[in-house]
Amino acid sequence: MIDVAVVGAAGYVGIEAVRWVLAHPGLFLTCATSGTDAGRPVSASYPALTGLTDVVFSEPDPEAIARKSKVALLAVPHTAAMGIVPGLLEAGLTVIDLSADFRLTDAGVYEQWYETPHTAAGLLAEAVYGLPELNRSKLAGARLVACPGCYPTATVLAALPALEGPAVDSHIVVDAKSGISGAGRTPSAKVHYCSASESVSAYGDCKHRHIPEIEQVLSLALYEEISVVFAPHLIPMARGLLATVYIRVEKGFTTAKAVGLYRGRYRDEPFVHVHSAGVMPSTSEVRMTNRAAIGVMVDERTDTLVATCAIDNLGKGAASQAIQCLNTVFGLPETEGLNAWSGVV
Amino acid sequence: MIDVAVVGAAGYVGIEAVRWVLAHPGLFLTCATSGTDAGRPVSASYPALTGLTDVVFSEPDPEAIARKSKVALLAVPHTAAMGIVPGLLEAGLTVIDLSADFRLTDAGVYEQWYETPHTAAGLLAEAVYGLPELNRSKLAGARLVACPGCYPTATVLAALPALEGPAVDSHIVVDAKSGISGAGRTPSAKVHYCSASESVSAYGDCKHRHIPEIEQVLSLALYEEISVVFAPHLIPMARGLLATVYIRVEKGFTTAKAVGLYRGRYRDEPFVHVHSAGVMPSTSEVRMTNRAAIGVMVDERTDTLVATCAIDNLGKGAASQAIQCLNTVFGLPETEGLNAWSGVV
Amino acid sequence: MIDVAVVGAAGYVGIEAVRWVLAHPGLFLTCATSGTDAGRPVSASYPALTGLTDVVFSEPDPEAIARKSKVALLAVPHTAAMGIVPGLLEAGLTVIDLSADFRLTDAGVYEQWYETPHTAAGLLAEAVYGLPELNRSKLAGARLVACPGCYPTATVLAALPALEGPAVDSHIVVDAKSGISGAGRTPSAKVHYCSASESVSAYGDCKHRHIPEIEQVLSLALYEEISVVFAPHLIPMARGLLATVYIRVEKGFTTAKAVGLYRGRYRDEPFVHVHSAGVMPSTSEVRMTNRAAIGVMVDERTDTLVATCAIDNLGKGAASQAIQCLNTVFGLPETEGLNAWSGVV
Amino acid sequence: MIDVAVVGAAGYVGIEAVRWVLAHPGLFLTCATSGTDAGRPVSASYPALTGLTDVVFSEPDPEAIARKSKVALLAVPHTAAMGIVPGLLEAGLTVIDLSADFRLTDAGVYEQWYETPHTAAGLLAEAVYGLPELNRSKLAGARLVACPGCYPTATVLAALPALEGPAVDSHIVVDAKSGISGAGRTPSAKVHYCSASESVSAYGDCKHRHIPEIEQVLSLALYEEISVVFAPHLIPMARGLLATVYIRVEKGFTTAKAVGLYRGRYRDEPFVHVHSAGVMPSTSEVRMTNRAAIGVMVDERTDTLVATCAIDNLGKGAASQAIQCLNTVFGLPETEGLNAWSGVV
Repeated sequence: MIDVAVVGAAGYVGIEAVRWVLAHPGLFLTCATSGTDAGRPVSASYPALTGLTDVVFSEPDPEAIARKSKVALLAVPHTAAMGIVPGLLEAGLTVIDLSADFRLTDAGVYEQWYETPHTAAGLLAEAVYGLPELNRSKLAGARLVACPGCYPTATVLAALPALEGPAVDSHIVVDAKSGISGAGRTPSAKVHYCSASESVSAYGDCKHRHIPEIEQVLSLALYEEISVVFAPHLIPMARGLLATVYIRVEKGFTTAKAVGLYRGRYRDEPFVHVHSAGVMPSTSEVRMTNRAAIGVMVDERTDTLVATCAIDNLGKGAASQAIQCLNTVFGLPETEGLNAWSGVV
Repeated sequence: MIDVAVVGAAGYVGIEAVRWVLAHPGLFLTCATSGTDAGRPVSASYPALTGLTDVVFSEPDPEAIARKSKVALLAVPHTAAMGIVPGLLEAGLTVIDLSADFRLTDAGVYEQWYETPHTAAGLLAEAVYGLPELNRSKLAGARLVACPGCYPTATVLAALPALEGPAVDSHIVVDAKSGISGAGRTPSAKVHYCSASESVSAYGDCKHRHIPEIEQVLSLALYEEISVVFAPHLIPMARGLLATVYIRVEKGFTTAKAVGLYRGRYRDEPFVHVHSAGVMPSTSEVRMTNRAAIGVMVDERTDTLVATCAIDNLGKGAASQAIQCLNTVFGLPETEGLNAWSGVV
Repeated sequence: MIDVAVVGAAGYVGIEAVRWVLAHPGLFLTCATSGTDAGRPVSASYPALTGLTDVVFSEPDPEAIARKSKVALLAVPHTAAMGIVPGLLEAGLTVIDLSADFRLTDAGVYEQWYETPHTAAGLLAEAVYGLPELNRSKLAGARLVACPGCYPTATVLAALPALEGPAVDSHIVVDAKSGISGAGRTPSAKVHYCSASESVSAYGDCKHRHIPEIEQVLSLALYEEISVVFAPHLIPMARGLLATVYIRVEKGFTTAKAVGLYRGRYRDEPFVHVHSAGVMPSTSEVRMTNRAAIGVMVDERTDTLVATCAIDNLGKGAASQAIQCLNTVFGLPETEGLNAWSGVV
Repeated sequence: MIDVAVVGAAGYVGIEAVRWVLAHPGLFLTCATSGTDAGRPVSASYPALTGLTDVVFSEPDPEAIARKSKVALLAVPHTAAMGIVPGLLEAGLTVIDLSADFRLTDAGVYEQWYETPHTAAGLLAEAVYGLPELNRSKLAGARLVACPGCYPTATVLAALPALEGPAVDSHIVVDAKSGISGAGRTPSAKVHYCSASESVSAYGDCKHRHIPEIEQVLSLALYEEISVVFAPHLIPMARGLLATVYIRVEKGFTTAKAVGLYRGRYRDEPFVHVHSAGVMPSTSEVRMTNRAAIGVMVDERTDTLVATCAIDNLGKGAASQAIQCLNTVFGLPETEGLNAWSGVV
């Protein structure tokens, strides 16, 4: 059993991490920390966990975490993680960080998009970007994993095979649709049921912080500068994320070829499923799982490939992907503890 | 491993039964039959099961089922089950029936409410009503289990402790709220998203077929005739069922006493949780689980006890309860394969 | 044109009052006050009103309100209204109050349920309870109207005909289901989309403040003490409220008789519609209207009448009912400005 | 009063047309025809119209329609309209057609996309495309109006100002999100609440029939061939449509310039509202109205303009736009009968 602490455990991503750790036969939850909910039983804050765990949220005390745990799953806000990670690493822990703090390789880019100095820039070179479909070998034995954002996960999986192959333009359009849990647990006017239901809207600018992450991952993978225009939308569902990418491709490329290309690319991936021609995925089919479902089609009139990737924003987009990374870091079977599935309705 | 066939597997209850069988370490799915979907892979009809099973829906051939299986989970419509059950029993199978055909002990009552002759009335005496919280000992070794309806499950769990104790009136009011999956998988105007969303309504009469079942179960348990007025409502959510029961109680009975009574009654039940005073359960906390969550309060002004019981109508209200029964019939640990839980959001 | 101020206009009830005043051909909106949104254009807070009004929320200054207006529609919180009303009356205005402060005739009862002294108890005798279906004649010329709560409106309309006639028990059960807007505009964990969607639950105790209001109204109308047990539930829709009432009736009373009774009782009511036997109303059919739709059925097995009344909690349950009262007070046609209807889907 | 028949009145678009005709002070509804619902009162099929109209759906008899009406609003399916329109025109009626049959100017293109011969191709030249923002002058006095589809309405309004100005590429990406009512009233697996809720997915191919319509309208307006890749998505809400368009623009073009451009373009349009920089529209703000709300921003990193246009798919995307056309054809004030608005929540 590997002893795991979940730090920042009371937010939506944190509590999902708790849930996945509890369900994993090889992991033991040492503590679930939360500044806001410390002292409350987990099941008081989240009645869905009633009867499944007696853990009580505890204060986030780095020494206590380090003493009891071998791994820390960090689900604290961006800019907070970089203050905690160095100490945990020094104490000998493996850190799987779900924040954005160690995703960008260039501290300057981080500082530009997050508008704050990076206080642990020395660790950026060591951090492994935690998308197993790209970085499986680097993850083995890694000390610090930077788990991808939800939008980059879906976007990269949808775009990569096309960009590796038939794409003729390094500029792509990404239109993404996220469920409301993507906006976090904190109550606000935007997430009020009466505002969020029966409505859809785009975010107000073209400056989402996941843009540099998407561009970096694709550019590194392709040895070529990729640029994206990215417009995320909030839609009325609790969980789920669909990224729709539009990529100009060479003349004569067809839907059948595209499906073949994508299926070949992901043949050995346990968590990526490519649908048949004519079938595009629904987010409901991956709800509460670590799976990514991809559909791809080519508009032969305009030589544009359209791919959509459906994930659970809190699963493959966050907490269960962290477990997939953890499995890979420690040499466990990659699918261990991850065979949950969504209900059929 | 116990070989299990799911008969009528393409409806909402049937496919949930498939899902729970697949998740159970001691069960092996021999076949999933469906008249309408025969020949289609399960994952084509239900993409949420993509990658999790290669089973293809097969024609419902009783001989094939009997040859391959030790247990049949029946999720066929009311009045269809009684035509199939005798043959399966003769072939030596154990039958866990999710229809209403073997729930009522009196064939006359069945014929009155279902308006059709009962063609297997000789088996009614043998059938064990599959509510483990009531009938655990009778379930051990049973050959034919009649699983409760979703409304009776929630109603009986909510009402029983009060009726056993402080109730002063044998007539109770049951106001129930069900998610849309309770209306089944067949498309209709009523379940069209545009009709069902943003709306709530009661069913059109006071003659729901679950009434005689509720009255029978409570009357048998209490050695006293209990009568219920029962009004089910359809509310805009996919899954979940909440039963609210109103019971007149003796003067001086309090919420604190009620919570104590209910907690004592269900102390040893692995799947029943009674909330603290002041907390009433939400259906979301039991979604996709076999759990029942109960809240109870007493209106001391009017000496009325109000209890609500939240279940997943397709889980504890149907498919996972069938697995709980199966575990009990075969002497497996009662909770085996049933420790799923809902996501926290 | 009658000059109308809406006080407390930025909450859900207040902004609905603004909307109905703007739609009314005989009313002129002098101001919409809000402590929180003062200085913002109404359409900035509520983009749905874009292009329909240029009004800017203003500070709630009683003198300014009084100088410009003949009528004040008050949508401020309970306990706040009683501090404002006396001054507005003294300044010569008619006050239509949507809070609870002047609904209860007995200051002692108010103080018991609202746990605060009533500072304007001297006005209680004068206040007219604003349910036109009960108090039409008293409303004509009234100076102070106390508009009913949403739950009492639906409950009284559903229960009154039965209590006037075939009821044999003065204790009734009321199970109510409200959309999320009933919980108000202030963000909270409870109204977060991720908590409120796909779930239903009852409130945590039997002490909702609408209970004494319901009992008072029914008891006064019937010259008999009526007691209610009342359990409100929150269900996943933005607007709408359904009250289901259970009333013991004399033996031999039938659904057909019940429909006849209710249709006779409401024959001349422009905003109350009684459905045919076998049809129970949906809240969607009254969304964004001032209408109440009623269905009634009798469980002849148990001699219990079940009636449901569907209203829009912000319409007939609040703002449009205030306009109906205003019309009646000033001798305008009762339906003037109130012929809005909901969309069909 | 202008006598108006609604033909094909029982579908979602048809019944919305009925609703808008009833609400219009200058229109009189002569009949509402429906093959499926003939003989039923409108309010029996759509209880939301209870008390507002006594009209009974009638058989679609062209002679009866012609005898009683001056205008026919046609909401029959594609390929059915072209069989009815010639007779109605010959009988002297004005026809406002909501189907696709007279939208495309080239019968060959129609036959390619709709896979059926056009039986009234001789009328295509006369039909006026009913987007008043483009064709106001041609609409005056027109005999046959072809109302735009919902996707083309939103797309053209979102794309046109950019294509007229700063665009540097005549190929654009359109990612559209529609509520479930866009799939029509007929029950199906896709629109079952349990399939449609909590999920989003793209349509299965790149061949939506609105593509040639969008390309034709933009190309005619711009005297330049425009090509679109178009991916519609179904999202979990009953009503509403959001089109997001991506257009490459000249270097140095900014969000501020874009807002200025769009505001100038639509300055005199009563039903088009352009939001401030940083604010993108929600579909909820135009629900049940004839309004289009537009937001525009420029990704200066990639010189891509992103515009979103929110409409009600059954309002400005269908029925109320038909009324706007009717007003224009007959010289009524363009906004007459169209000042409805959505509720604020």
